[in-house]
Amino acid sequence: VSGKANVHLRERLKLPPSELFFESYYKPHVARMLLYIFEHEIWIHIAHVRMLRKQGIVRPADEPAIVAAVLELSDRGAEILNIDYSLEDLYSYVEKWIIDRLGPEVGGRLHTGRSRNDLHTTSWRMALRDLVLAVMGALADLRAAVLDMAARNVETVMPGYTHLQHAQPITLGYYMLTFADLLQRDWRRLSAAYRNVNRSPLGAGALATTAFPLDRRATAKALAFEDLVEVAYDGVACRDDAAETTGALALLMTNLSRLAFDLQLWSTLEYGFIEFGDQHASVSSIMPQKKNPSALEHMKSMVAMVTGSHAAVLSCMKNTSFADVIDGASGVNEPSLDAATKTRRVVALMAELIGAMTTRPDVMRKSAERGFGTATELADLIVREAGLSFRMAHNIVAAVVRETVEAGRSAMDITSDQLDRAATALFDRPLNIPEQAVAQALDPFGNVRLRTVEGGPAPENTLNLIVQRQATLAEDRKWLTAATEHIASTRSEVFAAARALLREPEHAAR
Amino acid sequence: VSGKANVHLRERLKLPPSELFFESYYKPHVARMLLYIFEHEIWIHIAHVRMLRKQGIVRPADEPAIVAAVLELSDRGAEILNIDYSLEDLYSYVEKWIIDRLGPEVGGRLHTGRSRNDLHTTSWRMALRDLVLAVMGALADLRAAVLDMAARNVETVMPGYTHLQHAQPITLGYYMLTFADLLQRDWRRLSAAYRNVNRSPLGAGALATTAFPLDRRATAKALAFEDLVEVAYDGVACRDDAAETTGALALLMTNLSRLAFDLQLWSTLEYGFIEFGDQHASVSSIMPQKKNPSALEHMKSMVAMVTGSHAAVLSCMKNTSFADVIDGASGVNEPSLDAATKTRRVVALMAELIGAMTTRPDVMRKSAERGFGTATELADLIVREAGLSFRMAHNIVAAVVRETVEAGRSAMDITSDQLDRAATALFDRPLNIPEQAVAQALDPFGNVRLRTVEGGPAPENTLNLIVQRQATLAEDRKWLTAATEHIASTRSEVFAAARALLREPEHAAR
Amino acid sequence: VSGKANVHLRERLKLPPSELFFESYYKPHVARMLLYIFEHEIWIHIAHVRMLRKQGIVRPADEPAIVAAVLELSDRGAEILNIDYSLEDLYSYVEKWIIDRLGPEVGGRLHTGRSRNDLHTTSWRMALRDLVLAVMGALADLRAAVLDMAARNVETVMPGYTHLQHAQPITLGYYMLTFADLLQRDWRRLSAAYRNVNRSPLGAGALATTAFPLDRRATAKALAFEDLVEVAYDGVACRDDAAETTGALALLMTNLSRLAFDLQLWSTLEYGFIEFGDQHASVSSIMPQKKNPSALEHMKSMVAMVTGSHAAVLSCMKNTSFADVIDGASGVNEPSLDAATKTRRVVALMAELIGAMTTRPDVMRKSAERGFGTATELADLIVREAGLSFRMAHNIVAAVVRETVEAGRSAMDITSDQLDRAATALFDRPLNIPEQAVAQALDPFGNVRLRTVEGGPAPENTLNLIVQRQATLAEDRKWLTAATEHIASTRSEVFAAARALLREPEHAAR
Amino acid sequence: VSGKANVHLRERLKLPPSELFFESYYKPHVARMLLYIFEHEIWIHIAHVRMLRKQGIVRPADEPAIVAAVLELSDRGAEILNIDYSLEDLYSYVEKWIIDRLGPEVGGRLHTGRSRNDLHTTSWRMALRDLVLAVMGALADLRAAVLDMAARNVETVMPGYTHLQHAQPITLGYYMLTFADLLQRDWRRLSAAYRNVNRSPLGAGALATTAFPLDRRATAKALAFEDLVEVAYDGVACRDDAAETTGALALLMTNLSRLAFDLQLWSTLEYGFIEFGDQHASVSSIMPQKKNPSALEHMKSMVAMVTGSHAAVLSCMKNTSFADVIDGASGVNEPSLDAATKTRRVVALMAELIGAMTTRPDVMRKSAERGFGTATELADLIVREAGLSFRMAHNIVAAVVRETVEAGRSAMDITSDQLDRAATALFDRPLNIPEQAVAQALDPFGNVRLRTVEGGPAPENTLNLIVQRQATLAEDRKWLTAATEHIASTRSEVFAAARALLREPEHAAR
Repeated sequence: VSGKANVHLRERLKLPPSELFFESYYKPHVARMLLYIFEHEIWIHIAHVRMLRKQGIVRPADEPAIVAAVLELSDRGAEILNIDYSLEDLYSYVEKWIIDRLGPEVGGRLHTGRSRNDLHTTSWRMALRDLVLAVMGALADLRAAVLDMAARNVETVMPGYTHLQHAQPITLGYYMLTFADLLQRDWRRLSAAYRNVNRSPLGAGALATTAFPLDRRATAKALAFEDLVEVAYDGVACRDDAAETTGALALLMTNLSRLAFDLQLWSTLEYGFIEFGDQHASVSSIMPQKKNPSALEHMKSMVAMVTGSHAAVLSCMKNTSFADVIDGASGVNEPSLDAATKTRRVVALMAELIGAMTTRPDVMRKSAERGFGTATELADLIVREAGLSFRMAHNIVAAVVRETVEAGRSAMDITSDQLDRAATALFDRPLNIPEQAVAQALDPFGNVRLRTVEGGPAPENTLNLIVQRQATLAEDRKWLTAATEHIASTRSEVFAAARALLREPEHAAR
Repeated sequence: VSGKANVHLRERLKLPPSELFFESYYKPHVARMLLYIFEHEIWIHIAHVRMLRKQGIVRPADEPAIVAAVLELSDRGAEILNIDYSLEDLYSYVEKWIIDRLGPEVGGRLHTGRSRNDLHTTSWRMALRDLVLAVMGALADLRAAVLDMAARNVETVMPGYTHLQHAQPITLGYYMLTFADLLQRDWRRLSAAYRNVNRSPLGAGALATTAFPLDRRATAKALAFEDLVEVAYDGVACRDDAAETTGALALLMTNLSRLAFDLQLWSTLEYGFIEFGDQHASVSSIMPQKKNPSALEHMKSMVAMVTGSHAAVLSCMKNTSFADVIDGASGVNEPSLDAATKTRRVVALMAELIGAMTTRPDVMRKSAERGFGTATELADLIVREAGLSFRMAHNIVAAVVRETVEAGRSAMDITSDQLDRAATALFDRPLNIPEQAVAQALDPFGNVRLRTVEGGPAPENTLNLIVQRQATLAEDRKWLTAATEHIASTRSEVFAAARALLREPEHAAR
Repeated sequence: VSGKANVHLRERLKLPPSELFFESYYKPHVARMLLYIFEHEIWIHIAHVRMLRKQGIVRPADEPAIVAAVLELSDRGAEILNIDYSLEDLYSYVEKWIIDRLGPEVGGRLHTGRSRNDLHTTSWRMALRDLVLAVMGALADLRAAVLDMAARNVETVMPGYTHLQHAQPITLGYYMLTFADLLQRDWRRLSAAYRNVNRSPLGAGALATTAFPLDRRATAKALAFEDLVEVAYDGVACRDDAAETTGALALLMTNLSRLAFDLQLWSTLEYGFIEFGDQHASVSSIMPQKKNPSALEHMKSMVAMVTGSHAAVLSCMKNTSFADVIDGASGVNEPSLDAATKTRRVVALMAELIGAMTTRPDVMRKSAERGFGTATELADLIVREAGLSFRMAHNIVAAVVRETVEAGRSAMDITSDQLDRAATALFDRPLNIPEQAVAQALDPFGNVRLRTVEGGPAPENTLNLIVQRQATLAEDRKWLTAATEHIASTRSEVFAAARALLREPEHAAR
Repeated sequence: VSGKANVHLRERLKLPPSELFFESYYKPHVARMLLYIFEHEIWIHIAHVRMLRKQGIVRPADEPAIVAAVLELSDRGAEILNIDYSLEDLYSYVEKWIIDRLGPEVGGRLHTGRSRNDLHTTSWRMALRDLVLAVMGALADLRAAVLDMAARNVETVMPGYTHLQHAQPITLGYYMLTFADLLQRDWRRLSAAYRNVNRSPLGAGALATTAFPLDRRATAKALAFEDLVEVAYDGVACRDDAAETTGALALLMTNLSRLAFDLQLWSTLEYGFIEFGDQHASVSSIMPQKKNPSALEHMKSMVAMVTGSHAAVLSCMKNTSFADVIDGASGVNEPSLDAATKTRRVVALMAELIGAMTTRPDVMRKSAERGFGTATELADLIVREAGLSFRMAHNIVAAVVRETVEAGRSAMDITSDQLDRAATALFDRPLNIPEQAVAQALDPFGNVRLRTVEGGPAPENTLNLIVQRQATLAEDRKWLTAATEHIASTRSEVFAAARALLREPEHAAR
């Protein structure tokens, strides 16, 4: 192979990037590339060069040479690139290494019909794709943990709150079922985002493909993408897939902050409904008695970080040219991958924490009895038994509650007599409801059992829905496993075929 | 039936809300309710009371009485409520008016088995549902305008940019097709959000349904919802539907900011690619020559407002109890409805602006010739004609471009000779490419025509995809029309049946 | 003077703005201008025309004519402008009205040496200036309410928490003093923002002043500005004053959300530390017992809105030309004024709410005794009495606490004996601390009294600091009154002088 | 020294943190602590133990022993801590190492009267303090670069734009002066934030100081703080200093995005006003002609990241207990330090980029002539020469401009005759302005020279202000140097005194 060796990318310019430019941009950029996309780019190089050969764009002999070099790089790892942070990006080192190895006549052909624009956006999508699947894996575990907690507590009566005030009795199982439903919608959003991420821009070139007869479907298939980003310009100009993903993550995390809020409250001395496992608490260096719910507060901090990342993604793209520009396109990699990494960890931690926490059903039940959460049922009872309208019944009970609170007594102390006095005062007539009916209405679990309306907290209702949700979760897990395995097996096949190519007799001779 | 008339909601408390509480909360709240949900709540009252009667929860005679009062309110409008901003919310006025009219024995039954919690979240979902459909209507128009602009310009050559630098020639049609694809994904996101919004929480009660045997499916159907929010607690505690919607709007708007950015640039004296219609420009009060692209800058401001609304929604829900709390649930109404309203207007305006703008194909073409956008094709030509590797060809052309720029000449001045000199200097050999081939490679439209790879800008390619996208748009419009009409016709039927009820002989007698 | 009457601003363009452009931009824009800046612009017109006359830029006879028209407009109000939303902005109507009145020869001189660019940015600054002062007024009230609550509770022992777990006893007064200090810093930030807002850009013209010899200091003084935005271009291109203000508001509101969080918690059945006035609570339409802390949840929603507005401001300016552009400059008016309005209301409401709430010192004290908040002092006692190192003492107490918790007992049950057993187990020696010393250490109020280190919660400490802070507040109020009055009196003087001008003999003749 | 060695912090709990808890929280947390606060904590330990000794809280002999251990740790570095990520935080390793070295009897005394709460918040403030000073150093350089560019270009005429349309001529120097003024305000905001950061919470203990007689002023002085966070609870519960800092950074960065926007535009082929140094550009791997302004786009991405960090800080604190909680207090460290680091880099890079860029005054001047930026002056000329009102003159010029644009001619082609024709058409009279006066009015530099109003772009005006600003900058640099040196010299003194202590005869014997 003839030709001088020092072809390079930066032929157009006379000066290398400045130190400050390196510090602010290239160094963190290359470091992130090493972390996230080195392996994906190896895979892409193999898929690309094999397609080039099939399409007759590179010479037959070039294929095994380039493939061998790429596989060697894969086997020996990025260390051999001697990254000294003097070049623009990871690919600059890779191409340099390959050209050093094969000479510019052969090594210079790897990048035919391709640009770093489509190369990078493809590899970043692959990195994000993996992370989204990882988040979904953790989310499946969390859904399982929440549904399991739900299933074990369909009869665990607790106060249902609105505005942090006792409202009506529910069960812990019912609360958890509700949260599982919210997580199921988060799953749906992530799943839609995933499908947006999982499309191949490869072959887009710099922005407008090329005159070489590339086969974009072939590389998309070899890289386990579900589909193409069809229009090439779209492939390099847009990362709404990353924005959609980060949006889904921010919402998921915001939802988690609400569960974390309640769990932290329930674990206070004042509530005492639950206790966390020691493995999810921290201590004080000075206050010997402390057992701090640090895991929850950490999670809530991370909610803020992920929300901030989402704000960063939107801000990054705002008012940028609809084209391949750093701020409009590649700039979103940092915040979206950070957000996904943090979300995966927090979701997994929350699943573990729920699995390990101890519940105190007695405390919950006592609390439900102590509040006035059964007052609505008492009003409904008056409607049913005494035929008053709901608003009249509501007014009677409200007066009784006010009186009872002022006397420092609790709901369980309310009597039929007291109701009669209030009814008479307000509407000139007694109600004559049997004392026992009043007592029943004021029993929290009795309350819950009566609520058999669709979506209500009656135990059988709750359990039926939990079973349905568990079935949906099983389906979702099946999809997730298939998606994860499809990527892994496609990758294996591509690498296996590449290695097989090198073993073919005509190349073995090389 | 006797009974004093002044039953009311606030029986439990002794003082009315303070002036400052009214100013900050109740007044803006009631004003927004009047604007957005008055009519929806009328509809809900009818659906609810008819279901109550069917389920035997209210007495036969109460149904027509209540329905008549509600219809009268509907006919006469909110003015008759004499809203003096002394009550907590719109519903307080409605119930008061109905009870004044029918007495507490009858009027007090409307709210049986229901809470303001489920009433409001249902009506706000209905308001948001309408607005999302309106946004989608405007978005369909915008997609049409963009595709139309695309279809008329598949041969309008212009410079394709990356990083605002001339990259490779494309066509205006190709650029617009790309943007249409992005909008198509925004449509998909909105459509998913819509399905989340369009579910009925009615019957959830305060949080846990009720012991009255409500038929939640019946009211959901009567209110044209696609489905239930199945778990009652979910219905009052969660508004991830609003958050998802606002997220989709924020991303759509952010995408629009990128188009606005380019259009504004193209309309400068320096670019001169397009001119806006006078109806989308403003003048200066002092500079007589000015024609300002105010519509675009306004749109970009609105992008920020909608993004801010999305941030507000996430912040509002963060660290709140997973329950019906103002900040975690109803607090999101203001920012989500504001965001939808602003987005609808901006999207419609953008559609109109694109339809009315004038393009200057000659300026675009000349600009494409003047830049060095065809240099990549020149390198590719060297690969094909002289058999060099791409990187070597790239280095040769880079050297030639640098030399040409420094000499103050343009791409069209590059000659075969010049290439030979550079090739010899770098790699010790001339290329001998025919002068005519060089000239062809340097022609922008020739360039574009060659890019027939899937997703490339060749005119036929572009046109084919445009036709496909137009078909998809037609399908989407069909769905939108059906959704909109389903809501309208269901509403008509419910009101017609209610009026028919009053005409039945036994009620006519009342 | 002849000349056709219909001179107008939009001479340059042939079409009026489109309907959609009006709906999205001009209508809300003009509505907001009417609300916020109509009166300020009147004031500016008077100051401007008088300066023009003094500088010899308009003819002597024009001054009283124009002043008379402007004063008439001021007296009769914006209604006479017949705003039909067909013009670009409020000023278009004003100039049209004046020219209709005085003819183009005279009326056409009002805008000499001026642009809407500097006119508007000046009037928006005046509107923001007023609102910032109003927020500061409410903030002074809140600081007073918090300090008052502090002063009345320097001996009200309560549990001090970290991570929502009982940490060490403090007093309610100490907690409130701390919050007052935070608010004092919010005041400082607002005050700095105010000084940035309160500078006059008038005379900047469109961006580069004018060749007419304007006296910018004169108009700044007449409009009660503290200083100029010195560089004209700065005056029209930058609104970092609005961004700084909104940032200060967002931080203030975020701080308030933390107080609101605690107050809501303390008002739960579980804590029971405080009860809100009925005037700050709402009820349930269905749950007769409910008294909901709606004011607090509303406030927290508003925190999110203001934070969203701040995000909108930053987003609005991002990636815009550093020049007078809508998104980079005037676009920030909507979110910054909205944020200030909401903040003012919430801060005032919080002040009122704190003033009206009831505290329950007994509940707080009992809670402080029940937790293990005195354990640190117990460890410190061991250090002092038995000479062990703090870490050893800490380990002994931690062991004792764990044992006590597991036995279901509370801090007050810990004995000297128990300490000895733990010390022996861990370090092979007893401690021999008198039982009475142990009991004293475990008393919450005793604990607090001992903490006389600078900044500690001992009552005298706390009271001293409260008195200092009240003095600072008095100083701050003095400044606020002066600033508010300076604006009012300057305005009065300018209007009085203008009216006096019209009464001068030579003009009376007109 | 007696006593068993394995005293530890986590005595209270039976299980170590789980793997997932480590991965999500402790590992990144400890890594960040190593990076940012290891050295600060060494300093704090020395200051703290010396104060303890002075106050008689630890025994005389303990001081040199602990100081010696701490200094050894300082000299040998964090490596000797063998951080295996099994403990809660950095301090856990430090205390463990010291206790291993000195035994629990002596080593266990270091933490007397102190908590990790005050230790950490103090050290994080020290880390932030250093970073803010570093940002300010870069900002001083940027202000210098901008003012230098301004000083060299007070006569470099260029088009002044509003809405990206040619408005009126200005100079590059005037533009840069304006930006320098904005940066001066950013400096003021950072400086205020710095004073908020630079206060010592040390001695606050867990939240309420301690009964040991600490001297908080002494440690504050030894750590070079300007003042105390006076109230202890404030010191552990609030980090509004970090929020204020991040807010100031977000606004500074947003401002930079506007400069970056213009510079990128000016560097396009279409504008051609400037060219960046090769050291601030990147190339294309495929388009040989490309020289991409990557530094600017990178900067704009970073603006989004810093804005996102600010959003994260506010979100992190929102709805948290006003107390020491992770999300409300320490959670802000990550985003605020990240934001400061990124801002420092970007600001420094921008300073370098401006210093290295090439301007093209001829292109700017030609562009100014080509637009219609002088039309306002033409209208003003008519006012002065022909006595018409401004609005009439404005209408005449507007008509002439429209006619000229439609004829495809430029401003320089406008003649006195043409003005007469328009004046006659509109107002029935010619203007008779000398042709030469018209020509002068249309000359961009003549225009600029006339604008001598305060704050106008006339060269002498501009230069005077630049000189003033340079003087202010010199003062600011002086302050910065003093602040930086005070910290460095205080630190040196504290360490020197500590080392001297060990050389005292009575300790030398140890």
